[in-house]
Formats: sequence, structure tokens, C-alpha cells
Amino acid sequence: MTRRTVIAVLEGAHPVRGLERLAGLAEVRVTPAEGLARALDGADVLYLWDYFSGALPAAWHAAGSLRWLHVAAAGVDKLLFPELVASDVVVTNAHGVFDQPMAEYVLGAMLHAAKGFGPLRDAQREARWAWREGRNIGGSRALVVGTGSIGRATARLLRAVGVRVEGAGRTAREHDDDFGRVHATADLAAVVGAFDYVILLAPLTPATENLVSAEVLGALKPSAVLINAGRGRLVDEDALVGRLQAGALAGAVLDTVAVEPLPPAHPLWSLPSVFVTPHMASNADSWLDDLAAQFERNLLLWLEGRPLPGVVDKTLGYVPSGRPSGG
Amino acid sequence: MTRRTVIAVLEGAHPVRGLERLAGLAEVRVTPAEGLARALDGADVLYLWDYFSGALPAAWHAAGSLRWLHVAAAGVDKLLFPELVASDVVVTNAHGVFDQPMAEYVLGAMLHAAKGFGPLRDAQREARWAWREGRNIGGSRALVVGTGSIGRATARLLRAVGVRVEGAGRTAREHDDDFGRVHATADLAAVVGAFDYVILLAPLTPATENLVSAEVLGALKPSAVLINAGRGRLVDEDALVGRLQAGALAGAVLDTVAVEPLPPAHPLWSLPSVFVTPHMASNADSWLDDLAAQFERNLLLWLEGRPLPGVVDKTLGYVPSGRPSGG
Repeated sequence: MTRRTVIAVLEGAHPVRGLERLAGLAEVRVTPAEGLARALDGADVLYLWDYFSGALPAAWHAAGSLRWLHVAAAGVDKLLFPELVASDVVVTNAHGVFDQPMAEYVLGAMLHAAKGFGPLRDAQREARWAWREGRNIGGSRALVVGTGSIGRATARLLRAVGVRVEGAGRTAREHDDDFGRVHATADLAAVVGAFDYVILLAPLTPATENLVSAEVLGALKPSAVLINAGRGRLVDEDALVGRLQAGALAGAVLDTVAVEPLPPAHPLWSLPSVFVTPHMASNADSWLDDLAAQFERNLLLWLEGRPLPGVVDKTLGYVPSGRPSGG
Repeated sequence: MTRRTVIAVLEGAHPVRGLERLAGLAEVRVTPAEGLARALDGADVLYLWDYFSGALPAAWHAAGSLRWLHVAAAGVDKLLFPELVASDVVVTNAHGVFDQPMAEYVLGAMLHAAKGFGPLRDAQREARWAWREGRNIGGSRALVVGTGSIGRATARLLRAVGVRVEGAGRTAREHDDDFGRVHATADLAAVVGAFDYVILLAPLTPATENLVSAEVLGALKPSAVLINAGRGRLVDEDALVGRLQAGALAGAVLDTVAVEPLPPAHPLWSLPSVFVTPHMASNADSWLDDLAAQFERNLLLWLEGRPLPGVVDKTLGYVPSGRPSGG
């Protein structure tokens, strides 16, 4: 009789969904961070339900039998440590699950900035009827930085409401179904000045850290709005604060910041043209059930020896699809 | 030589745009409210640039030569007094000018409610990282009450982002290009319970006043959001406050209220699930120039004796087009 597959599941802030179904397919060991090494001993699969955990490096010594790691998140920047990258362990992520909520968040963020909803909410809290004009987003120009499945879903949603979208990714190309034109991120400083909204949805990798540098920020139109729903460290945050304080940038909507939670004394909290949201862009409706269903689908494929979708290129630091995902 | 056309222009909070072009076409008398009767004496046309003015009834005795009145607004509820309705004066409004900003406001309002941006903004003002899940609007059901050009533009925009839209208007119909199904507003209480968002874009008339009655509010899903960008008096405001205070309704986004500005002590200001905006939904980008250009186009048609677009049915209280307007 074949040995049963062993899955270590790192539990998180939300109760793990779908466990009863997994238990029919494998031996399942649910553990908090402090028991991770013990759960990994002899495990074939690690399922990081706690998608932001930093517990794996300390338990890695026990992962000798590990062959597949699935993380219930899109970004894997906090996960990829050298020993994992060098290993043969296949890493998959929650490719596709967050496309719809993330695209909607970006659209909502654009409208929030365009209509001045932040200052209007502040006025409401003081019972002030503070009339002000809005802006239309129809006909405006948006640059989506990041050409993975989330960036593509966002581009399609924005185009559907009449926004003129282009993309920025690792390699430039003239014709792309979702973006039309894709610029090389290396040319960001030269191209950002043409856009009303610059939207960050790129993964955080050594190549993208600080991508929106002081130089890039300095090249933005004063009327432009920066939206970051990727990772905080894509942006030179001090330079961003400086531009905003100087009134050299119309506003920013930030779902991710360099240090999360954003420290109470940080100037981004209090700048009136900045809207800070607490890393919730990807979390809507059935996201927890969707994550559980995705892992179960992947597990069935894996048990049958079939290829998994959403495999992370551990050297690049993301899923190098470039095409929308159905998963 | 023919007598030159005389246009009385009631100035408003914003300087009148496009006067230099009008002056080449007619004798133009720009006046504040207190000079309206004098300006109307002998005038053929009245151009209400101050679209919320209540000054006309007191000056009506001097309007004996008036043949056409244009108001730079969509709603004419504040304008239509009995003598004007009974007269032969043709009334036109700013039909079409506000379609894009209004549709975008509604989309922004839906996303504001769905993503919890109001409470998140409140938390930001206290430097609190208060994570919460959002909702997706894709796949949700919205009822647009009001089938004029603004309601239609809104329905098209919402459909473009995957919202399942139906309409409500004076007469029910099964097949409509923009709405699919249109319900009769008389049946509102029977149908609203199926929708996640109920969006008011109807004109205020004797037939629509209090349309969203306590009964209709009681029929809404507890998870539903009411968006009112039409007129405050479409809604039984006391009943609305009661439902919201009771937690029997998820939220409301209100760009119009019964008394504007909303009095400082009104409970709508402080309900956390309510977002109050100061009647600005229609005001974005080039709206003032668009209003000026529209009146100039209408004036050229009128001087040539050709039919005007956007003629208000003074008995119904709105432009009975039912079809999108290009103007």
C-alpha cells in the first residue's frame, strides 16, 4: 500500500477553510508557526494558509521530504528565502483568485481620488457641506505597472469604463491584447509623465524594489495620482511623502506600504491627498473559500502527477505567465 | 431691420462662461437675481446659469415677451411654478451634459460602499490600520430608478463592469437596450428586495416625491446599499435614518438630501454607514464649459427656428426622451 500524502498546513488569522475535503485526500497536519518544523517532518506538501508568515526559514531543516509548497497569496516576496529558491520544491501561489477584487479596488481607488471622496468624507465627519468639483476618469490615461493576471484584469476593467490604459512590464512590446502598448519598466521615468494615474501591481523582486524612485516620482504630472496595490517597497516612500507634501503630486491611494501596519506617527496617515487602506484590496466576498477551492484543485492535479497552474519562477519571484489565468 | 434677440442671463456662483460668443449672436443682459425683472422686460430668452435660483416667480410679471427658457441643470423641480407651466414658454435643460460625471459618481459610490472606503477613511484619520474585507460589485444586482439619459448612461457603465442592472421607470417593459428589464416605479416595493444596490436618478415630480417610502425601504435587503444622486425628496428621509440606525440597511451614499446644505445637526452626517456628498455628482472636469457650449448650440438652432433638444415636458417635469442623448 502506497504511503499517504502528508500535507502540513500553516494556520493563520482566519480559520483554515476546506479542511474536511483535504482530509479525504491526504494526511493533513494543521499547525501554528511554533509547530511548523514538527509538522514538516515527513511532509510532501506545505500549504501556507497564513500567507504572510515568516516562520518557514526557521523550520526549513525539517523540510527534507517537501516537494510542493502552495501559498494562499499572490505576492511571494516574503516567502522566497535562499534555501527555498535553491531547492527543488515547486512553489505555487493563489494565481487568479485576486484578479476581480484587485481590479475593482483599483477602479474604486481611481474614482475615490477623481471625485475627491477622501476630503468629502473628512468634511462629512465635521458636518461640513464642502462642495467641490470632481474629475472624470473616462478618457483619462492610466499606466498599469505589472503585467501578470492582476494587472491584466485591471487593465480590462479600466478599459471597459473608457480609461485609456497602457502597461509597463519587464519587456516592452507594441501590441498586447490587454494593454495595447507595454513599456519597459526600465523606461518608467521617461514615460510616466504622460499618465493621469500610475497603478502599481507588480511583484516585489530585487528588480522591482524602489522601481518608483525619486526620479520616477519627479517625472509624474502634478495632477497625477499614484495607486499602489502591489507592494510598498516598489516605491521610494520618503520621496513620495516629499512630493505629496510639496503639492507636486495630486494624490496617492496606498493599499500597501513599506512597513505594515503603517506606524501611527507616519506622515502618510495625515496627508489629506493620501488615502491609506490596510492591505485589503485583494480580500472580498468569497476569497477565503476561493483560496481553499484553488488548493484543493491543485492537490487533485498534484496527486495525479499532472502539471500545476500558477508555478512561481523562484528566480524571477513571480508567476511568469503574462496571460490571464482562469484559476 | 429685424429686432435683435434679447437674452436675459441670470448669473450664479460660478462666472458665466461663453458670454463673448453669445454677444455676437444677441443682446445679452447678465443680471443677478435682484435685477431679473428689469432684464426680463422685453427679453425673448432666459438663460438660467444660476440653475438653483428661485428668483423667477417674483420676476415673472416682467416676462411677457419670453418665449424660451434654458436652465443649466438636469433637474427642473425647483423651476417649474404654475405660471411657467401654464405658459407657452419652451423650457430646455442641460440634457446629456451630466451623463458621464453622474454615471461615474454612481460607480464610485458603489465601490466606496462595497470596499468600505468610508470606515477605512475614518480609521485613517485616527491612524488606525483597521483591516476589513470588501465586497465585489461584479455579479451584484443593481436597480437604476430613472430611465432618462443619466440613468441610461449609468446602466451602461455598470453593465460594462459586470453589474447585473435592471431599471425602474414610469412604465414597465420587458426589453430595453440599456436596462434589459424595466420595472414600473409603482411596483418598487415588490421588486427592490432582489437588488444589492438601489440607485436613484429619477427627476423629482409630484409622481416621484417620496417614491422610496418607508414601505420600499422596508423591502430592501439588509445587505443592500441605497445611492441617491437624484433628489433628496425622492426618499422618506426619516424612514431612511430609522432603517440605517436599526442596522436594517447596509449603507447609503447620498449626493442629494431633502434640505441642502444638510443641516449640521442632521443624523445623516454622523451615521458611519452613510456617505454624504454635497450635491457634486454632476460637476466634473469641463462641465461649466460644456453647459456654455450647449446653450450656444441651442441658441443657434433657436435663431434658425429649428427644434431644440432637451425640451422639458412641463407637466411631467422632465425630458421625456427615454433614449440616450448625444447633447
